[in-house]
Amino acid sequence: MFEVIDFSHSWRGFADDIGHRYTLFVYFIASSKTSTIPGISIAGASPEQTLYTPTLDVEYLVLGKPKTVDVIPITPEGIPTPAIITRSALSLTKASHLVVDCGAFRRPAMPVIALPHAVVGGRIDVENALPEGYGEKLFRDGETLGRALASANSLLIAGESMPGGTTTAMAIMEALGFNAIGRVSSASPSNPTKLKEDVLRKALTRYGREIPVKNVFEAVEVFGDPLHISIAGFVSGAIEKDSKVILAGGTQMCSVLAILKRLGLNLSGRVAIGTTKWIVSDRSSDIVGLVKDIAPEVPIAYTLLSFDDAPFAGLRYYERGYVKEGVGAGGTVVTSQLVWGLPLATVKEVIYREYERIAGLGYVKKS
Amino acid sequence: MFEVIDFSHSWRGFADDIGHRYTLFVYFIASSKTSTIPGISIAGASPEQTLYTPTLDVEYLVLGKPKTVDVIPITPEGIPTPAIITRSALSLTKASHLVVDCGAFRRPAMPVIALPHAVVGGRIDVENALPEGYGEKLFRDGETLGRALASANSLLIAGESMPGGTTTAMAIMEALGFNAIGRVSSASPSNPTKLKEDVLRKALTRYGREIPVKNVFEAVEVFGDPLHISIAGFVSGAIEKDSKVILAGGTQMCSVLAILKRLGLNLSGRVAIGTTKWIVSDRSSDIVGLVKDIAPEVPIAYTLLSFDDAPFAGLRYYERGYVKEGVGAGGTVVTSQLVWGLPLATVKEVIYREYERIAGLGYVKKS
Repeated sequence: MFEVIDFSHSWRGFADDIGHRYTLFVYFIASSKTSTIPGISIAGASPEQTLYTPTLDVEYLVLGKPKTVDVIPITPEGIPTPAIITRSALSLTKASHLVVDCGAFRRPAMPVIALPHAVVGGRIDVENALPEGYGEKLFRDGETLGRALASANSLLIAGESMPGGTTTAMAIMEALGFNAIGRVSSASPSNPTKLKEDVLRKALTRYGREIPVKNVFEAVEVFGDPLHISIAGFVSGAIEKDSKVILAGGTQMCSVLAILKRLGLNLSGRVAIGTTKWIVSDRSSDIVGLVKDIAPEVPIAYTLLSFDDAPFAGLRYYERGYVKEGVGAGGTVVTSQLVWGLPLATVKEVIYREYERIAGLGYVKKS
Repeated sequence: MFEVIDFSHSWRGFADDIGHRYTLFVYFIASSKTSTIPGISIAGASPEQTLYTPTLDVEYLVLGKPKTVDVIPITPEGIPTPAIITRSALSLTKASHLVVDCGAFRRPAMPVIALPHAVVGGRIDVENALPEGYGEKLFRDGETLGRALASANSLLIAGESMPGGTTTAMAIMEALGFNAIGRVSSASPSNPTKLKEDVLRKALTRYGREIPVKNVFEAVEVFGDPLHISIAGFVSGAIEKDSKVILAGGTQMCSVLAILKRLGLNLSGRVAIGTTKWIVSDRSSDIVGLVKDIAPEVPIAYTLLSFDDAPFAGLRYYERGYVKEGVGAGGTVVTSQLVWGLPLATVKEVIYREYERIAGLGYVKKS
């Protein structure tokens, strides 16, 4: 059902009491103008539309129907958002869930947790990601939320939706002194590695000083985005209250680990990554190497969910390297297996039924 | 530790599995300009300052320190907010908690759940409480949130802070056809019953049609406020997902029951009120009669917490009929006893220590 990569034998300690914990799924969203650089992101039908993707992802996830614009996010090829996976797994567990707005271009038209310093991220090739001071402010916002939502008997699953996120994640890791060029994944089967590196080079030139950047918050303000620093704060607050946390996402989550490690946090036995086999087996990125370099005490659990027998082309594309991860899809499925013991076949059945439903409503093509 | 008033023998069914449930405390805030009518509310040092009380209450509750203005809410006599009780009980349980903004005059300077239709309530003697359509919109916002936050194994505790709330609660109940004049409580020992009735009369004249108002949402838009309808929606969504709910508050919560009953919901075994003995024993109001008339299937659990031996005058005032309830104080203490089995003496000790702390910071007078 799922497999685990576990460098430091910490999985058992992490997983042993998970079944007795109360699970709360928390999906973080933000926009970064970095996603509007042509070629950087296919998480939307056009570069400009990627700004709306986080909002539409979570409206669809929670309400079953987008509200702000009547569109469920698709790639230019028409492949639907991984929120379809998340929504299906979540509906089977009937678990509690929440959305946190760290700086979406449009605030979703439903109840969400608003961070007081939520702000749309700048386009990092030409401008800073965040206003001065906002690196720490967003971290503290996330930390306050993590402390409030956590409890000693809870498991928090943190997912994300922010197009352009692998690019800013790479830039954060590089700025903090970790090798990340060519190691972050992409929603496209042709990872625009060269373009991402160009964006980083421009950001480095703009910055004009040496890296690694000593001050973590400064690094995020120059090279990052509003999302990853908020999630890092959330994890910090949550584990302080003895909660366990699954970071539900791909290589982006390695930037969260990088922030936490540079801040000196101990993650052992408290934090795991939950993702998909599409991420782990991706040859154009290297989540395993990133975790090994940054935080080998963090195990990676990945679901074996596969769409090779999917009756819909829009899902079969996933097997050809499209999408791979997002909106906490992998970690939500892993958790549904880990905590509820849901068979993968059941999850898949519900995903196919959900695809059928949204195809019937005209949001995606049936074949 | 606590006692229960249980007209229809529903307490046992409500309480039997509570210890196995995961508790999440949710504090709803809003402002109603009704609180600025001189004499209506002492939940603030002056009528105008009552508009800030919900924001400062929850900032202090969650962060231990107010942020928006450097003031912890007090009555004109200097008696501190019941949030001091809530904060103490909550800190002992270390439980998960959240704040929902239904229309605070100022949004708190921390992460809160923002309802998309959050709006400050109008002064109901001279204007409608809500813009047209907002009765149902806020109900749906609350319902969406209730569905998302609830799970089949959770217990949700819903508290509130909104000065002027007993007046609008009375008006809602009357508009829906329940006798409520002279039956709602007050934070003052001299309940301004006559003044509250005047406000209702003016609202009735302004409305100019017959009551009871058939349409629940219309009743709330004319006579109510943004808070109670949002909580009612929240309860509706939560019990639909098989969660149990404790309404943590005094006579105000009877207006939530009135809304839910008029909408035809079955509350038996799923909803209880949690409050204080100060409310239940108050001679100027009648929570027991209100619940009996409106929803006798809802048991009332009230904590026996008493401040007669308090070393601080600011708390001894509570025994003289001041404050009584608010910010979910009673229900939070009841839950800490019911779920964690906390002895009342321990809760009291922590409250006294907390009073000492905020007195040391200059927020309240020591004697």
